[in-house]
Amino acid sequence: MSDQPTAAVLIIGNEILSGRTQDVNLGYIARELGEIGVRLAEARVVPDIEVEIIDALNALRGRYTYVFTTGGIGPTHDDITSACVAKAFGLPFGRHPEAERRLLDYFPPEKVNAARMRMAETPEGAELIDNPVSIAPGFRVENVYVMAGVPKIMQAMFDGIKAKLKGGPKLRSKSLTMYTPEGEVAEPLALIQHDHAEIDIGSYPFTRDGRYGTTIVFRGVDESVLERGFQALQAWANDRGVETKQEA
Amino acid sequence: MSDQPTAAVLIIGNEILSGRTQDVNLGYIARELGEIGVRLAEARVVPDIEVEIIDALNALRGRYTYVFTTGGIGPTHDDITSACVAKAFGLPFGRHPEAERRLLDYFPPEKVNAARMRMAETPEGAELIDNPVSIAPGFRVENVYVMAGVPKIMQAMFDGIKAKLKGGPKLRSKSLTMYTPEGEVAEPLALIQHDHAEIDIGSYPFTRDGRYGTTIVFRGVDESVLERGFQALQAWANDRGVETKQEA
Repeated sequence: MSDQPTAAVLIIGNEILSGRTQDVNLGYIARELGEIGVRLAEARVVPDIEVEIIDALNALRGRYTYVFTTGGIGPTHDDITSACVAKAFGLPFGRHPEAERRLLDYFPPEKVNAARMRMAETPEGAELIDNPVSIAPGFRVENVYVMAGVPKIMQAMFDGIKAKLKGGPKLRSKSLTMYTPEGEVAEPLALIQHDHAEIDIGSYPFTRDGRYGTTIVFRGVDESVLERGFQALQAWANDRGVETKQEA
Repeated sequence: MSDQPTAAVLIIGNEILSGRTQDVNLGYIARELGEIGVRLAEARVVPDIEVEIIDALNALRGRYTYVFTTGGIGPTHDDITSACVAKAFGLPFGRHPEAERRLLDYFPPEKVNAARMRMAETPEGAELIDNPVSIAPGFRVENVYVMAGVPKIMQAMFDGIKAKLKGGPKLRSKSLTMYTPEGEVAEPLALIQHDHAEIDIGSYPFTRDGRYGTTIVFRGVDESVLERGFQALQAWANDRGVETKQEA
């Protein structure tokens, strides 16, 4: 999987770290990246504190092909992401003419105020990311994509940039749900993983209607290897009379 | 808030980064820590890769009062958290006698196998964390608490250690939901934040039944300052005839 581009997600916001808000952006971005063959390699959640945001940005942007940030680009005093991105890159920070135009077109004159116009500020030279939901744009600086935290807006922004990202070989996956405890299937699974090192085998225990079960997920770029690993596990289950169900 | 102990959560598992599994442990731990006055200051999600786990552990454990890890302590080949904790601390890794006893008591002899007994391995000198759900324990080494990823088990483990954590002044919060867009309330809010620097004011926009609204959350240890900030905002809303609703 070494020819796959990589990515990190940086979630910015006290509300996630206080437990007030359940993040759902990470999963969305993860699944979307998976579809285009970009491997999400790390995620971090930091509070609305300048030094924390800048340090995390600088650690991640040097390390991964893409960094996606969510949160902190609204009109209020705690929305400091955009200014932090400018500082992380050492760029001047100010009104982006096109962002300004979009906001002034959208808001009737009596609704224009300094707080709302803060949403037109970006690091110098930033490329805007369209916001078809509520106009105020996100932006990109080099490999850092700065998006809103509200899931509906974030998703609309991501949908707009997705086609521009350079992907890699698509990661395929195949799942087998087995009605046997994880501790029973662990040993055959380790052998199958050993024999098929190119794929990644994950194991997720569950209880359903009082029965113990395990879902095994095979992931990899080579469908034939995936299929061989899958069949090896299916054969083990058949030999032992373990009930299985192939997942979509 | 400087006399508050701090914490980080380290979420370990490919399934979170692939988007297959929605993490819910972070929010649970965040809310529980809030109750005892520990400030959750950062969270990271890393894959089941040894060097990533070790690097994240070492970065976080030196920086925060507590580190809580979730995931990667089951019986399968991809469960490598425990061994990584040993490496991060430079400790020998092997069977914990009490963990071994618990597993052997729990599993009938025909169910005992090498994979399951891996769950008895800890860094040397680790203190066990009870698992009332499925027996296999978590453990603590210094300020690092290693817990399961399955939410029901993680919660049971956390409930067992919560009373042993040294908390700080409890963070109180008070919320006001206003039926006005975030861009309208941003300026008075910035002034109120400026006048009440000891509290932390967060602003969360929403749309409900087609109406724009904003929930304002005041957080801080001093209830009287919280109340003053809250009343200042309520007065602003009353002056403008903005409909408000106090949240629990």
